[in-house]
Amino acid sequence: MSNAVTILSGGLDSTTLAFHVADEGIKQHFLSFNYGQKHKKELRSAKKIAKLLGCKHDIINLSKVGPFLKGSALTDSTSVSMPEGYYAEENMRLTVVPNRNAIMLSVAWGVAIGEQAEAVYYGAHGGDHEIYEDCRPEFISALGQAFKLGTHGNFPFVLSAPFSTMTKADIIKLGIKLKVPFKKTWTCYQGGKLACGTCGSCTERLHSFHLAGIEDPIKYTDREYWKKAVLERVSA
Amino acid sequence: MSNAVTILSGGLDSTTLAFHVADEGIKQHFLSFNYGQKHKKELRSAKKIAKLLGCKHDIINLSKVGPFLKGSALTDSTSVSMPEGYYAEENMRLTVVPNRNAIMLSVAWGVAIGEQAEAVYYGAHGGDHEIYEDCRPEFISALGQAFKLGTHGNFPFVLSAPFSTMTKADIIKLGIKLKVPFKKTWTCYQGGKLACGTCGSCTERLHSFHLAGIEDPIKYTDREYWKKAVLERVSA
Repeated sequence: MSNAVTILSGGLDSTTLAFHVADEGIKQHFLSFNYGQKHKKELRSAKKIAKLLGCKHDIINLSKVGPFLKGSALTDSTSVSMPEGYYAEENMRLTVVPNRNAIMLSVAWGVAIGEQAEAVYYGAHGGDHEIYEDCRPEFISALGQAFKLGTHGNFPFVLSAPFSTMTKADIIKLGIKLKVPFKKTWTCYQGGKLACGTCGSCTERLHSFHLAGIEDPIKYTDREYWKKAVLERVSA
Repeated sequence: MSNAVTILSGGLDSTTLAFHVADEGIKQHFLSFNYGQKHKKELRSAKKIAKLLGCKHDIINLSKVGPFLKGSALTDSTSVSMPEGYYAEENMRLTVVPNRNAIMLSVAWGVAIGEQAEAVYYGAHGGDHEIYEDCRPEFISALGQAFKLGTHGNFPFVLSAPFSTMTKADIIKLGIKLKVPFKKTWTCYQGGKLACGTCGSCTERLHSFHLAGIEDPIKYTDREYWKKAVLERVSA
């Protein structure tokens, strides 16, 4: 049985990825990261998902690193407020944590070397590309090649983001087939009791469930806002 | 005046690099990393060097990450003991911390994005290549390209390791010109009161000072061992 290290945020994409990789018969070690994000609630979701799949799970504490990565609404409450609206709008760049994915992937690759894991998986998806450069296939491919060059021996042999050209709606459709418990996932960038429905991450999720033709099973403070955000974007 | 983020370990190479970059008139922000290394003493050296150059300096705490990067004598006291001998011997691979340089460079790049720094500097040198894949020019170049692909905007524009094809003896010669206070640097992988003189890092340093034709100003527990290690390597 081959083994892999999978980055599991507790969100919809990485959870579906975890189920997809498990379905391929690959043994996974899940890593989640606490980088000082306001939505630490996702880590609780990650824990539940890992338990459900019966896999090893570690939460890596990068909270001391977060404050050095300046300018993101995800980590910096004092000077950057969370943007609302359509997820691919230019203002959503405020949610980019500088080089966050490279940092998490570097750590995951380091863990994978120690375990001679064959692959590192991560759940970047196609809808991220417009504003998140570090979710694009060309970035993932280049980073994987660099890691290989910096690593002695054969393992790990690949950095893989199998959803990197899929839309979130496609991922939801795949998740339905794989019986992913979407109710247990956490997507909202705010750390509230309910998902807000107005941040970029919520609007994308709700829009994608709509496109996939099913209802999102989680509760929202504002379940209708996304329609307005999408309409404004389309007419812009 | 252009600005840069420079990784400063407190060792001989990164200290000479810091002086070299300062000499070019570039304003630096130094980053050091605590990743659970036994030789935390180097961090004290880094602090002194930063003060001497009058630059901003932060020590980033990755000590919670270290235990997940398994199999290195630098971080894992219980299961891996520090190898002695010539620095390029195969057994020195035990001192490789899995993907450590990519992790530090990812964080440094993230900091540099937030500060719109023009470059990230790091002190990999030519002598490292035999056993440290993550010091080779092709790795540095590939990683820098990946980071660029994952970053929005123009800054930083380069990941630079100007010593990556120089020997440590060459670096020492440059350091002499730049009046680098070698006495303040810390190279030994052991965390003892004096440098041990027998670990790979000490033998390389002593051998390199010998090749540069000057005396190393720091004190060693065993200042003669390196000659035996080099002779055995040559006759092997």
